[in-house]
Amino acid sequence: MAERIAVLGAAGYAGAVAARLLHRHPRFELAHVTARSDAGARLDAIHPRTRVPLVLEAYDPDRHADVDAAVVAYPHGASAPVVAQLRERGVRVVDLSADFRLHDRPTYEAWYGEHGAPGLLGDAVYGLPELHRDAIAGAELVANPGCYPTAAILALAPLARVGLLEDVVIDAKSGVSGAGREPSHGKHFVTVDETVTPYKVGAHRHTPEIEQELGGVPVTFTPHLVPVAHGELVSCYVKDVDADVSALYEEAYGDEPWVEVVDGPPGMQEVRETNYCRISIHRTPHRLIVFATIDNLWKGTSSQAIQNLNLMFGVDESEGLAA
Amino acid sequence: MAERIAVLGAAGYAGAVAARLLHRHPRFELAHVTARSDAGARLDAIHPRTRVPLVLEAYDPDRHADVDAAVVAYPHGASAPVVAQLRERGVRVVDLSADFRLHDRPTYEAWYGEHGAPGLLGDAVYGLPELHRDAIAGAELVANPGCYPTAAILALAPLARVGLLEDVVIDAKSGVSGAGREPSHGKHFVTVDETVTPYKVGAHRHTPEIEQELGGVPVTFTPHLVPVAHGELVSCYVKDVDADVSALYEEAYGDEPWVEVVDGPPGMQEVRETNYCRISIHRTPHRLIVFATIDNLWKGTSSQAIQNLNLMFGVDESEGLAA
Amino acid sequence: MAERIAVLGAAGYAGAVAARLLHRHPRFELAHVTARSDAGARLDAIHPRTRVPLVLEAYDPDRHADVDAAVVAYPHGASAPVVAQLRERGVRVVDLSADFRLHDRPTYEAWYGEHGAPGLLGDAVYGLPELHRDAIAGAELVANPGCYPTAAILALAPLARVGLLEDVVIDAKSGVSGAGREPSHGKHFVTVDETVTPYKVGAHRHTPEIEQELGGVPVTFTPHLVPVAHGELVSCYVKDVDADVSALYEEAYGDEPWVEVVDGPPGMQEVRETNYCRISIHRTPHRLIVFATIDNLWKGTSSQAIQNLNLMFGVDESEGLAA
Amino acid sequence: MAERIAVLGAAGYAGAVAARLLHRHPRFELAHVTARSDAGARLDAIHPRTRVPLVLEAYDPDRHADVDAAVVAYPHGASAPVVAQLRERGVRVVDLSADFRLHDRPTYEAWYGEHGAPGLLGDAVYGLPELHRDAIAGAELVANPGCYPTAAILALAPLARVGLLEDVVIDAKSGVSGAGREPSHGKHFVTVDETVTPYKVGAHRHTPEIEQELGGVPVTFTPHLVPVAHGELVSCYVKDVDADVSALYEEAYGDEPWVEVVDGPPGMQEVRETNYCRISIHRTPHRLIVFATIDNLWKGTSSQAIQNLNLMFGVDESEGLAA
Repeated sequence: MAERIAVLGAAGYAGAVAARLLHRHPRFELAHVTARSDAGARLDAIHPRTRVPLVLEAYDPDRHADVDAAVVAYPHGASAPVVAQLRERGVRVVDLSADFRLHDRPTYEAWYGEHGAPGLLGDAVYGLPELHRDAIAGAELVANPGCYPTAAILALAPLARVGLLEDVVIDAKSGVSGAGREPSHGKHFVTVDETVTPYKVGAHRHTPEIEQELGGVPVTFTPHLVPVAHGELVSCYVKDVDADVSALYEEAYGDEPWVEVVDGPPGMQEVRETNYCRISIHRTPHRLIVFATIDNLWKGTSSQAIQNLNLMFGVDESEGLAA
Repeated sequence: MAERIAVLGAAGYAGAVAARLLHRHPRFELAHVTARSDAGARLDAIHPRTRVPLVLEAYDPDRHADVDAAVVAYPHGASAPVVAQLRERGVRVVDLSADFRLHDRPTYEAWYGEHGAPGLLGDAVYGLPELHRDAIAGAELVANPGCYPTAAILALAPLARVGLLEDVVIDAKSGVSGAGREPSHGKHFVTVDETVTPYKVGAHRHTPEIEQELGGVPVTFTPHLVPVAHGELVSCYVKDVDADVSALYEEAYGDEPWVEVVDGPPGMQEVRETNYCRISIHRTPHRLIVFATIDNLWKGTSSQAIQNLNLMFGVDESEGLAA
Repeated sequence: MAERIAVLGAAGYAGAVAARLLHRHPRFELAHVTARSDAGARLDAIHPRTRVPLVLEAYDPDRHADVDAAVVAYPHGASAPVVAQLRERGVRVVDLSADFRLHDRPTYEAWYGEHGAPGLLGDAVYGLPELHRDAIAGAELVANPGCYPTAAILALAPLARVGLLEDVVIDAKSGVSGAGREPSHGKHFVTVDETVTPYKVGAHRHTPEIEQELGGVPVTFTPHLVPVAHGELVSCYVKDVDADVSALYEEAYGDEPWVEVVDGPPGMQEVRETNYCRISIHRTPHRLIVFATIDNLWKGTSSQAIQNLNLMFGVDESEGLAA
Repeated sequence: MAERIAVLGAAGYAGAVAARLLHRHPRFELAHVTARSDAGARLDAIHPRTRVPLVLEAYDPDRHADVDAAVVAYPHGASAPVVAQLRERGVRVVDLSADFRLHDRPTYEAWYGEHGAPGLLGDAVYGLPELHRDAIAGAELVANPGCYPTAAILALAPLARVGLLEDVVIDAKSGVSGAGREPSHGKHFVTVDETVTPYKVGAHRHTPEIEQELGGVPVTFTPHLVPVAHGELVSCYVKDVDADVSALYEEAYGDEPWVEVVDGPPGMQEVRETNYCRISIHRTPHRLIVFATIDNLWKGTSSQAIQNLNLMFGVDESEGLAA
């Protein structure tokens, strides 16, 4: 029997991909799609590629909480109270926002402002299956990782877990969908086309999330906007180590269905619209360099959310994610 | 009276921009444009935006050395013997290849193979006006810098010259024209579109050139190809310093006509088709970050060649370069 | 039991998509992938998104004809003799080239030169399922339509079949993959980026194919290259008609699984990497305008080839094509 | 002595290009730049490539009408009253909006709504120098043509003026800057990237403007948005004619400094950031096809405005426009 799943905030890019994947998922049933300003429209009118013929409705906890689980695709801050509402009604949640990713409330509040449901922080599991598979399987509330952290943590965790991670510089490149669907000067085609621009230098909110999952190792993280719709590449420069690095990565990812360790430096195109993360490791004269690339809307957000849902409901982890 | 200038290799991207700028230059006269496989065609048929109506001719030292100077836009290795020929005939040269950039012959030969005119190495001046203006003015042979080195050296020289440069990571992003006009799989639209790909990791030939001009400080330099026609951005991560960094850059570039030190992180578009280099400096918790952006075909190659020619002939350095 | 299928010419864009779709097809087994210059490499090394781990082999009729069917992705002219070889061995064929699309040999030879297997022309069925479903089901040799013809014919067939098609102008826009994977100046990123260029004006080889399937109505067909990797849009301007146009299209496509008649003018993105063709019809003061958009590599080539294979083997027509 | 010119609405794309060209113009002085929401910022902070260090001010007729002429870059409707104000103060105007392009008030009001300064309609000259050079030279108020009309009229005027223009289909492709700088879903990078979309089918406001200047010949005009920042191509399909078409175009444009009639079909890149219009003419079996390409922000708007100002003040028509 199919679990019924709602996607809240389905008119945004992340919500739309989640809805698309759930709609064609062999096990789950996409029960509701909600939106604020686009309520009343059919999802496939706004996002034709979803081919989801459901009508977007204004979220109503009394009508839309009749589900087994919800994917919440709300902005940071807006998510926490809705997640609380859903949890009170017994609905399991994969939250795409940052609201439950940081275990430490003061850290959260330093970067994001007051927390809307601090009582739930202890329940949340950080939803990176390659690091926390078992905890996710038993979780009621999964905090889906940010897109940059997904790539950066997968790139560096094999070093961090053996205490060999030091002196970390992460130079990240992201497609424009990572900045969301809301129109702005910064996302205007003419602004983004034919250019690369660094942003939030030294101050991006994904920094504490990366540091938390890498065991507290401090990182310098600098994102750049590139003229690509979706895709993400992190170029990680770390202190070289006296260890068999290939073996560390093989041990970490040899059995992982969605992590590919390859020889050449990977490009974003290679994982576009898939749940894969591609990683390559390079020893150079002064630095060890690790690249990781994902699709920011897929493994970086929504296909990873489905991977988490699969784990939460005991379904094969890769169900509905075939490339 | 106008100096007469030839552009050898004018059918490539760099040669075409040099010819375009010389054709409209108020002081110089574009005397010849040469090409190999495109000989016989008019330059404006191959590169319409040049609006240069001259016919490309196969290079002939007996016919094309009747000039005051030549811009040689040949591949590495192919350039040295032709430069030697021109120098024997008393023609002053700005060489766009790498053949005369490295002062140290063994270093050159380690990265590029046997040198074709080692006797001229001692005559060549590294053509970065902001560092070597006086030497360029008196030079007969100017080795025009590589595009990546132009950006990277301008980004970091103010630190290097006071001995404060350490622990350097340079993550560079370049448009496709930097790889030249010759068709290849790597430059096919479908290969480059919607992706970012690192290349020549730990092994790019611009590395020794950057290190030479930064006083021998070792650097980790990693280029990435981005879906942009021309433009280049270097993101430089260095050890933070106990000094007034703004003052160092103000001192270095306050009077420079073509270096703009700005607050925000700069984007490639801001300098597109200009001779400007835009730089910004950012103190972050663990690193000092310096960004520099140029147009790889302009300040990174051909407008910088004109800047050098202006200096060599005692013309105002900015003549013919107005944005 | 799975039918075994070979893809010949799998290193090109069209062959790679065919192999990708067959590899994950629930009913067919991808038995061989062949290539000329890339033989020896794994397909997923050249085209990572296929995730097909098979090694490309040089085509050998004695080894690769042990299959139920083959998709032949060869250039025009090169295809016919190989198709003949396969047919002699009893292998059913979907040919992606133009070699068997035109029923009339003189017309073929006027546009393409001498035909390599004229004896098979009478056996070939034009592989547009929406027009020739029954014939395809019984065919041994299917000539898969060209990408432009697929879009143009689907756009105009409902008018042509009732004799209401006149005075046809087709202005077509195509992504660069339509020109193939072989590197050339015309496909260099720098050539294609930030521009739109008409080509083969009045002389494109898809013209007779469109005219054949529209019952001989003459068309003016002009393709344009646009800075897009894959996708195709045809804007068709025809004489307005005194008929219920919506009803004609509803009748033609109301039950078609892969044709969507929509209100607004469709964009390429809406059908990217799907087997859909989206059509809209607009009455304007002086002309009836019909737009149709497809992915040139999918419905325009390779997913349509799978659709044809499904029909040929009595499998559900949409098997393996779910978006 | 330099004429002093103001640019009203300089924060938009068109106004910024006009300001950039005037700032470096050898004869004119850029006296003021005004803007609404961006008032207080420096123009080069918003549009770095202008390199115009002037501060944008809120428009004030008592302060900014102390000029010889103004370029008004306001939206349709908003322009007319401000133009009236300037004309009352004796300021000559080049208006970039549609407000004074249509001579016939009812036609204007049918497409745009009530006219804000109908009394000035009789004074306005349609600012296409190739058609109305003498009238522009004597004008106090020049209505700068729309971008699509500039290309379409230049493409077809040589046929229209000899009465040989019939049965006109204009399929137009435009870069995104043509839609203005205001953020919207339709201009979001993710919306525009990797797609081509027709818009305002049968209903674009440039239609009556094209028809007026082509002597009343009715046209079918369909614009398409393409993933290009700036650039425009019109593909014009007309009834073939019994005349020496090349001679007609040679006669029309042989002496024109900014119209290039070329053999091959032209691409947008060839005229990017120039005042050129490139045209090619092709006889095909059923249609005469004329292509014309311009940069929508240059010849399509702002460099044409400078060309008009040059004519109005007796300056060489090409002054300040050199490519």
